[in-house]
Amino acid sequence: MKIDGTHYRTIWVADDGWSVGVIDQTKLPHEFRTLRLASADDAARAIKGMVVRGAPLIGATAAYGICLAMREDCSDAALHEAYSDLAATRPTAINLKWALDVMVEALRDESGHERIAAAYACAAKICNDDVEICRQIGVQGLSLIRGIAEMKPDKVVNVLTHCNAGWLACVDWGTALAPIYMAHDAGYPVHVWVDETRPRNQGASLTAFELGRHGVPHTIIPDNAGGHLMQHGQVDLCVVGTDRTTARGDVANKIGTYLKALAAYDNDVPFYVALPHTTIDWTLDDGVAEIPIEQRSPHEVTHMTGRSDTGEIVTVEISAPGSSAANYGFDVTPARLVTGLITERGVAPATREGLLALYPERKHG
Amino acid sequence: MKIDGTHYRTIWVADDGWSVGVIDQTKLPHEFRTLRLASADDAARAIKGMVVRGAPLIGATAAYGICLAMREDCSDAALHEAYSDLAATRPTAINLKWALDVMVEALRDESGHERIAAAYACAAKICNDDVEICRQIGVQGLSLIRGIAEMKPDKVVNVLTHCNAGWLACVDWGTALAPIYMAHDAGYPVHVWVDETRPRNQGASLTAFELGRHGVPHTIIPDNAGGHLMQHGQVDLCVVGTDRTTARGDVANKIGTYLKALAAYDNDVPFYVALPHTTIDWTLDDGVAEIPIEQRSPHEVTHMTGRSDTGEIVTVEISAPGSSAANYGFDVTPARLVTGLITERGVAPATREGLLALYPERKHG
Repeated sequence: MKIDGTHYRTIWVADDGWSVGVIDQTKLPHEFRTLRLASADDAARAIKGMVVRGAPLIGATAAYGICLAMREDCSDAALHEAYSDLAATRPTAINLKWALDVMVEALRDESGHERIAAAYACAAKICNDDVEICRQIGVQGLSLIRGIAEMKPDKVVNVLTHCNAGWLACVDWGTALAPIYMAHDAGYPVHVWVDETRPRNQGASLTAFELGRHGVPHTIIPDNAGGHLMQHGQVDLCVVGTDRTTARGDVANKIGTYLKALAAYDNDVPFYVALPHTTIDWTLDDGVAEIPIEQRSPHEVTHMTGRSDTGEIVTVEISAPGSSAANYGFDVTPARLVTGLITERGVAPATREGLLALYPERKHG
Repeated sequence: MKIDGTHYRTIWVADDGWSVGVIDQTKLPHEFRTLRLASADDAARAIKGMVVRGAPLIGATAAYGICLAMREDCSDAALHEAYSDLAATRPTAINLKWALDVMVEALRDESGHERIAAAYACAAKICNDDVEICRQIGVQGLSLIRGIAEMKPDKVVNVLTHCNAGWLACVDWGTALAPIYMAHDAGYPVHVWVDETRPRNQGASLTAFELGRHGVPHTIIPDNAGGHLMQHGQVDLCVVGTDRTTARGDVANKIGTYLKALAAYDNDVPFYVALPHTTIDWTLDDGVAEIPIEQRSPHEVTHMTGRSDTGEIVTVEISAPGSSAANYGFDVTPARLVTGLITERGVAPATREGLLALYPERKHG
């Protein structure tokens, strides 16, 4: 998407034809900086240090990490070493292993210069496929926004989102934000309520940054505010992303998503979840009981990082000294609260039948 | 309650016999400092700037604001001017207007020095009555916690609270926290989940501070986390305060309360609201439609104050520069989501009939 008029992806091959450019997301929203990755080590460090984040982007970066490794040494030994090093960066991110496996498979029967060329071709395909999937999610979700816009002509369509499921988490477009970008680009008057998304504030920092730089009207709100806005008719639609969706449509997403879904349900506001098919876990049904929820450092709750008056990036303790904190990364929204799932193949009810109608090949899986 | 072994109220007349001492709550939890109010303007600024906050304490401070005004000029004109200035400081809390009305009524037939003396006497009575009312709320609420403790012997009773309805919000004891202090003091194993309560973080700063100083086990959580905890059986009881409760039991409280009430309802967790009778607005029914909701500065959302590594109190910008923010102070929880109202006279269902059974004198009001 655009940053101040210039189109960016989150990852690209540089003009030299081999090194890899990324946006340094650790500096956002306070500074926009790009970084050049020139080795597999650089790629691993970028993933580990959260220079790049978001499951699809982590996978894409790992893929280019393999390319950079092959450029230095295209032996099988080097390939396996790069695989191990990159796989160890964020061992919980499922797309990471998926992308690395795709790369190894593509390079298995190649050698020498052909192997290097095949690596770059495969990494580019992983990126392009991600962009196309997100674009299709955007097209599917656009129809929902268009439907609302046509019901209230000349009025703003207010969309609420939680966390960052935007292009910064993917290669381009994003998942939950793709329909919003498309609606905005198509001239529909969209306004986004951006949940700040404590404790890591991905909404206030990343979602607000990317919407703002693309020119999409938006307002940051505390995570506490969505219910009030829905009670007062100020939200037409909720759209969020997901980290894992079960076969019956239970949705794991950033902690707090469940509370917004409850409020949407209580106020008859449609609540949609945008996802690529790779996010569906066909092996699970009951999300609340079965999806493991990561607990992260209490430090993320008790401390906050931002920019001081003098422009310095400072971390401050915000809570009572000596008090402990708990930090659950995700929660699960039961399918009964989800109006629909926006996938690259269409919008499905959040039910096993709904998902299988879009992915019939899973019926006998 | 005690801080470092010394008993404090949140507001007192200083040793000089006329100026008013308060705890500067904008400095908590990082510094414990008291401030001296020497004029009605000081009192108004303290309320507006949230040096004092919490509905009962706002009322008490406004009462002393009238005292300070009368000391300078005890004319009717000065009384009415002080009334207007103080009434305009915060729009949502009903106690403010209630306390001011009580003061005006007490001073109506007094003049000169008698009027000043009557003002101080009336303000002191407002404070003492508040302490006794909160103590009674504690006694009533204790029976609920005792009931849960007896159902799960030798296990911790987990109580979730939002914002700060503790002694720092009142003159002493608090409303929602009074039952918790009493249960803890009586030896019941209580643990409190403390919602941090963005954007001003009254939970992480004030509630955690006062519970910690009293020795009550507690854990700070992001406002996003309560639903997840309730889904997993980790909350036995929710207790919150309120800034205004309507005659039928709709409850205005800090923004985000409604979301927790929805989660409690969805998971069969009892959701109680603790309040003195002064918080009931008998003139209103439909809280969502009728209670005005204060909008505060977006700066509270986009910036955060805390303590840096070097011990300095620093304010940092935490959101994307250039993005705007909305800051609604309160939301309204419909009575249908409230298990009961804990008042100084007993626990009532959140209905008109329930409230009138406790306050029969209002039947013909």
